[in-house]
Amino acid sequence: MFEKQVYVERRLKLRKKIKSGLVIILGNTESPMNYKSNTYRFRQDSNFLYFFGLDIPGLVGVIDIEDGKDCLYGNDFDIDDIIWMGPQPTLKELGEKVGILSTHPFKELYSTLSRAIKHGRRIHFLPPYRADNVLLLEQLLGINQSVIKNYSSVELIKAIVSLRSVKEDVEIAEIEKACEVGYQMHVTAMRMAKPGISEQAITGAIEGVAIGQGYMPSFPIILSQNGETLHNHDHSQMLTSGRLLLIDSGAEISSHYASDFTRTIPVDGKFTEKQKEIYNIVLGANNKAIEISKPGIPYMDVHKAAARVIAEGLTRLGLMKGNPDDAVANGAHALFFPHGLGHMMGLDVHDMEDLGENFVGYDDEITRADQFGIAYLRLGRRLQKGFVLTVEPGIYFIPALIQKWKSEKINESFINYAKVEEYIGFGGIRIEDDILITDSGSRILGKRIPVTVEEIEALMKH
Amino acid sequence: MFEKQVYVERRLKLRKKIKSGLVIILGNTESPMNYKSNTYRFRQDSNFLYFFGLDIPGLVGVIDIEDGKDCLYGNDFDIDDIIWMGPQPTLKELGEKVGILSTHPFKELYSTLSRAIKHGRRIHFLPPYRADNVLLLEQLLGINQSVIKNYSSVELIKAIVSLRSVKEDVEIAEIEKACEVGYQMHVTAMRMAKPGISEQAITGAIEGVAIGQGYMPSFPIILSQNGETLHNHDHSQMLTSGRLLLIDSGAEISSHYASDFTRTIPVDGKFTEKQKEIYNIVLGANNKAIEISKPGIPYMDVHKAAARVIAEGLTRLGLMKGNPDDAVANGAHALFFPHGLGHMMGLDVHDMEDLGENFVGYDDEITRADQFGIAYLRLGRRLQKGFVLTVEPGIYFIPALIQKWKSEKINESFINYAKVEEYIGFGGIRIEDDILITDSGSRILGKRIPVTVEEIEALMKH
Repeated sequence: MFEKQVYVERRLKLRKKIKSGLVIILGNTESPMNYKSNTYRFRQDSNFLYFFGLDIPGLVGVIDIEDGKDCLYGNDFDIDDIIWMGPQPTLKELGEKVGILSTHPFKELYSTLSRAIKHGRRIHFLPPYRADNVLLLEQLLGINQSVIKNYSSVELIKAIVSLRSVKEDVEIAEIEKACEVGYQMHVTAMRMAKPGISEQAITGAIEGVAIGQGYMPSFPIILSQNGETLHNHDHSQMLTSGRLLLIDSGAEISSHYASDFTRTIPVDGKFTEKQKEIYNIVLGANNKAIEISKPGIPYMDVHKAAARVIAEGLTRLGLMKGNPDDAVANGAHALFFPHGLGHMMGLDVHDMEDLGENFVGYDDEITRADQFGIAYLRLGRRLQKGFVLTVEPGIYFIPALIQKWKSEKINESFINYAKVEEYIGFGGIRIEDDILITDSGSRILGKRIPVTVEEIEALMKH
Repeated sequence: MFEKQVYVERRLKLRKKIKSGLVIILGNTESPMNYKSNTYRFRQDSNFLYFFGLDIPGLVGVIDIEDGKDCLYGNDFDIDDIIWMGPQPTLKELGEKVGILSTHPFKELYSTLSRAIKHGRRIHFLPPYRADNVLLLEQLLGINQSVIKNYSSVELIKAIVSLRSVKEDVEIAEIEKACEVGYQMHVTAMRMAKPGISEQAITGAIEGVAIGQGYMPSFPIILSQNGETLHNHDHSQMLTSGRLLLIDSGAEISSHYASDFTRTIPVDGKFTEKQKEIYNIVLGANNKAIEISKPGIPYMDVHKAAARVIAEGLTRLGLMKGNPDDAVANGAHALFFPHGLGHMMGLDVHDMEDLGENFVGYDDEITRADQFGIAYLRLGRRLQKGFVLTVEPGIYFIPALIQKWKSEKINESFINYAKVEEYIGFGGIRIEDDILITDSGSRILGKRIPVTVEEIEALMKH
């Protein structure tokens, strides 16, 4: 948690961006696994964390634009709670930690809002992503669950995106801590990987690296020899000589700032020539993207530049053909690189994704493309100083996709399908770093995890 | 997952217990952390697992009592899903695995149910514990969220409790596997514990024991020197010489059967005399409860027998006074032992708690007591062969509770408050094993985790 003043100032900045009405920011509640009292690890809502800081379930923050008051709604604990949970601070004490003097029992939120509605005041709320907050909004506002998203406040969304997109120095320091833990997780995986060990054992160990420090993975760990499956959460295989292992994982530290890295390593500790060729194309794309990222450049252009490096490299290897520029313009590279180059990162690993990807990653100037591949790009708009984002190009050989494109003769003039089919079973390679946009360029956050063929092979030797 | 026949037979048994109508068992969906696509580890609903076996989100099972058909509703994957998630089985293939031939796209569930409602048929559903299933039920049945629980089927609840309470041999084998993992977790903690190591490091390591095998803790790990806080999820302390460490944790294996054990160990590897005295009272209560548990005895009586051992022991030490039988009758022991002796365990660590504790643990003959302490007992009814349950007595010195009782002069004739206050800071001791009710008694499930003072001290020496 930051100093009280951080939250006070953020709320002041938000006030200036909202014309009138009441802003309500719902905190999260506990999330049940298999029955009400057996819950997942509590994860507070990131917008609530940003403006109200308190990492406790069952709270709602209200910012009244007209009367200038910030209020906190929640319930104090009773003696029964204290027996089961230990001594707990009061709501008043919690409020003071984040500069809020006006605290109220939760049930008063109902009367506060119904009074505001009666007076015809605008209620600004965010699109709920958890069903319990859908239910709560339905109860608070009387809007049916099925249409509640339509009534969320675009004015509030845009105001929050503009604030949260540009990271404060205190936030960057937290993200760097998360990067340090991500580094430890990846290096642990590199040290453990060898034929005969299970994917699951490595997954457990690197999750343990985070949990053992009181942290958690920032998203479900992807760790698979089937790296061509982009979001693969199956860890059931034993590592096998000759294969690649793709590891996409990061940490979320106590303050909930995240890191997100991908490395792809040879199970044997040494890349084959064929693996090295593809690997170095992906690394070239990653380096190119980091090199050209700077304030003012649309990230969509950075994505295309990375795609250009991939198309060029694959053309050199004979997997693609024709002019690489034309290939990229026609989306032919997306057979191999079917996802976006990266996304914002901060309090969420896909930062602010709950607010709507297009509000976060696009704007009036740059809108989302609809071509296969680049359509998945989460961040397309111009970069600004203080943005934190991921750079994660990849090359994959996805059997189902190759079959589909080949049979439908898609981009035949740019793809050498006979050669591509030789790579079925190769897997996939992705290389991901986290960067901060600086005054004139970008810098990699955290110590860079071993990334060149030489660095990885050297680390895996020990 | 078990053989197809297991699920077929369970559904047949359920049919025989329900007079008429449609039984709908909602599977769970993914549970979001901080935005829709960043989800917690998927946990299927236990009733769905019991009758339909499939460990996949987004499914609903329907048992039509009149027409004799079991149906499965869900959606097949498309090419986009396959790119991101890898090749997936079809709904038809999934159905076949659990003996269901009638599979349908999810949206057909709406018409199936509205047809049934039009014909005035009874729809049996279970009380939802996740908000997304509340929303789904509201959409499917047109019943408002705020009253939906009132319409859940007591007939269905009672039928399921009667089936799931008595464990099949295949289930007991799974529970024993979960116990084996729980054993490893606890022994790992005992080996790591020493002054200077953090609670968090041990928590991470034992969570890693489960995750590294593809499993998970069956509930959030309790691991604290403040053992007097019953559900303590704070792991922020460093282990300190002279203190006790309470560890309450178990594993949930791939089939989702659970284990649940508690051990309390001296940070130094050696109990002080004072600790040993209290420890052996708790162990005596644990052993007594296991010894007398058998078919026919109400577990409420077992709880009282354990409370009697505690009252007797504390009277011997001068912390309590008067006649121990009278003390227990007046609930005086509950100052030290304020919770229930145990609960059912199976597919849920508190088995079937979603169906309602009173349906699971009580019946027409034995109803829940309202005296402080025993009121928390989750299981009071007569034991039957095949029940699996926990036995977990404890003695705690809870400052807030001692102050409250003392100032309100509660049970003054049985409590020696002056002496009790000397124990503030002692912490708490709980010892928990899992047992199966057999033909004529009970047996401990899994290899018993070191439990005597000698066994624990011997293990911690190494």
